[in-house]
Amino acid sequence: MEKWEENVRRVVPYTPGEQPDFADMIKLNTNENPYPPAPGVEKAAREMDCEKLRLYPEIAAETLVNGLAEYYRVKPSQVFVGVGSDDVLAMAFLTFFNGTQPILFPDITYSFYDVWAQLFRIPYEQQPLDSEFHIVKEDYFKPNGGVIFPNPNAPTGVELPLSDIEEIVRRNRESVVIIDEAYIDFGGTSALGLIEKYENVLVVQTFSKSRSLAGLRIGYAFGSEKMIRYLNDAKYSFNSYTMNRPSLLLGAEALKDDLYFRNTAEKIIATRERVKKELAKLGFSFGDSKANFLFVTHKKYPAKELFLALREKHIFVRYFEKPRVSNYLRITIGTDRQMDMLIAFFREYMKQA
Amino acid sequence: MEKWEENVRRVVPYTPGEQPDFADMIKLNTNENPYPPAPGVEKAAREMDCEKLRLYPEIAAETLVNGLAEYYRVKPSQVFVGVGSDDVLAMAFLTFFNGTQPILFPDITYSFYDVWAQLFRIPYEQQPLDSEFHIVKEDYFKPNGGVIFPNPNAPTGVELPLSDIEEIVRRNRESVVIIDEAYIDFGGTSALGLIEKYENVLVVQTFSKSRSLAGLRIGYAFGSEKMIRYLNDAKYSFNSYTMNRPSLLLGAEALKDDLYFRNTAEKIIATRERVKKELAKLGFSFGDSKANFLFVTHKKYPAKELFLALREKHIFVRYFEKPRVSNYLRITIGTDRQMDMLIAFFREYMKQA
Repeated sequence: MEKWEENVRRVVPYTPGEQPDFADMIKLNTNENPYPPAPGVEKAAREMDCEKLRLYPEIAAETLVNGLAEYYRVKPSQVFVGVGSDDVLAMAFLTFFNGTQPILFPDITYSFYDVWAQLFRIPYEQQPLDSEFHIVKEDYFKPNGGVIFPNPNAPTGVELPLSDIEEIVRRNRESVVIIDEAYIDFGGTSALGLIEKYENVLVVQTFSKSRSLAGLRIGYAFGSEKMIRYLNDAKYSFNSYTMNRPSLLLGAEALKDDLYFRNTAEKIIATRERVKKELAKLGFSFGDSKANFLFVTHKKYPAKELFLALREKHIFVRYFEKPRVSNYLRITIGTDRQMDMLIAFFREYMKQA
Repeated sequence: MEKWEENVRRVVPYTPGEQPDFADMIKLNTNENPYPPAPGVEKAAREMDCEKLRLYPEIAAETLVNGLAEYYRVKPSQVFVGVGSDDVLAMAFLTFFNGTQPILFPDITYSFYDVWAQLFRIPYEQQPLDSEFHIVKEDYFKPNGGVIFPNPNAPTGVELPLSDIEEIVRRNRESVVIIDEAYIDFGGTSALGLIEKYENVLVVQTFSKSRSLAGLRIGYAFGSEKMIRYLNDAKYSFNSYTMNRPSLLLGAEALKDDLYFRNTAEKIIATRERVKKELAKLGFSFGDSKANFLFVTHKKYPAKELFLALREKHIFVRYFEKPRVSNYLRITIGTDRQMDMLIAFFREYMKQA
């Protein structure tokens, strides 16, 4: 190792899910939406004033912030936006989890939490889900430097009832509680209302799943004006202009078509509920997912074996080589046709095996 | 202050340059390019496959990384991309300036360096420019935790000769040296060649100035494969997908039209050299800027007075209320017509005052 490398920060590199690209593939591995974004998005892209790309974007991302404030009926000063919810969450870790006590989050959860904690040198303690993969709310009643969990949780899809979330918040008035609602629009109940009652709650959402815009990288957070101010201070000290012009323009456009948004989410929910029945018939078991994915296991067929067999056929699902979940597959809900092909594959596979 | 706020990270918020928006304004305050991006960019935007926006972007940003590698004749593994050069630089601070010795940079320089150092708790020592606003290379020959400076320097526009840069690099084999070349394409000499000779040099550039794409937020860095690997590890642990689909697509497109790029830069250089003569005639003095801006002062008229008078007329330039530079204006080079209006204003103002 050279001398200059002694000053280099070592991180445990995150291994992202594979992004295969085959014409014939069925891509059910990264929880993307199988339906295109609202038609207005395409129209806005076609009409974008490209000459303006020479100018910096709005510093406070007003176009998008105001659109979100209007849609969700909060004040613009209660909205923070970032480059995907990863950016929003990383900024929130950096801003709010700056104490000496460990922050708390589930042992089975979004795989970036421990990575950010390590990156920012935040002490943390993972709280085990119960055997049914439910969050045990009492685990979050002890002193801590902050609390974060996804709701519905990922990759389990299991939702924590709003009353339990509020209880966790009530028991944590001395640290920040972050509810990561990346998957909330598929039948879950948002904790958004809590931001009016509790000054220390942050609710984070994204355009990547329910709004079919993973490719634009738009995440956002709601919280008290005080929290949003702290977040913006940290963000501006990092990089003032993170949301580019196409994101601001097309993101704001997507918010305008509420009917399309709701229809798309409903289609995915309907497919999910149907697929649940089919997979149960095939002997799979899983929690009651409220997300756009299912987290399934099978008594007879090892998850890894199924994962590899699916892959052979260019059907991509997500497999985690991790304690407690290494016999599970996370399957994104695609179109009905895609899910039928998945089910047909399983049926065939189980006949032969 | 509430208890939860004790864990909040306090930063000195960066105050960005104002982003006025008047139909009749002459905007010479944020070093944007007065000319539109290459025509191919608009065409690519019109033809963008918006259905694909539902999918995450390429994780390794290949479209853009490969385009940059080809254009600048380096390996893709020597290229790092980020959301504007601010993102690239912040990642570089986080990754490479992780030692205990202070990092070194000029006292008059890009205003984000000290903000990032504070954010990441990196000790730093600012080295004063000489009275002519030149970097004193010997100041960077002492033990340090890293070195960074823009070339040409901002907001002075003054270039450090490549031989001096190489000497700084040669004297710093035990820490990382970052050369921030945001303004290099307006007549400066890039240090890109040094990355093949020295493993610890990072050269950072941007699409925001010379490629007329500030609105897309694209920055990039060249370095040894080892350095780029370290940067990517840090970046992936933060947010895997930062470059959105429009940025990748339109950024790569901009690289294809080299003639347009060179012509645009040459037009700006020609305007700058002409404006230098006009401003000298009016009694302004300034260094020999190699950037797309001039950093000017006048013996008789205080900079702040001129700044406010210009503002009245919707001509926006940048004024810094900071030691050593508070009697200077940073004036972006706009179109010939815009610069003529600026000069006409000065002429008129000086007649009356």
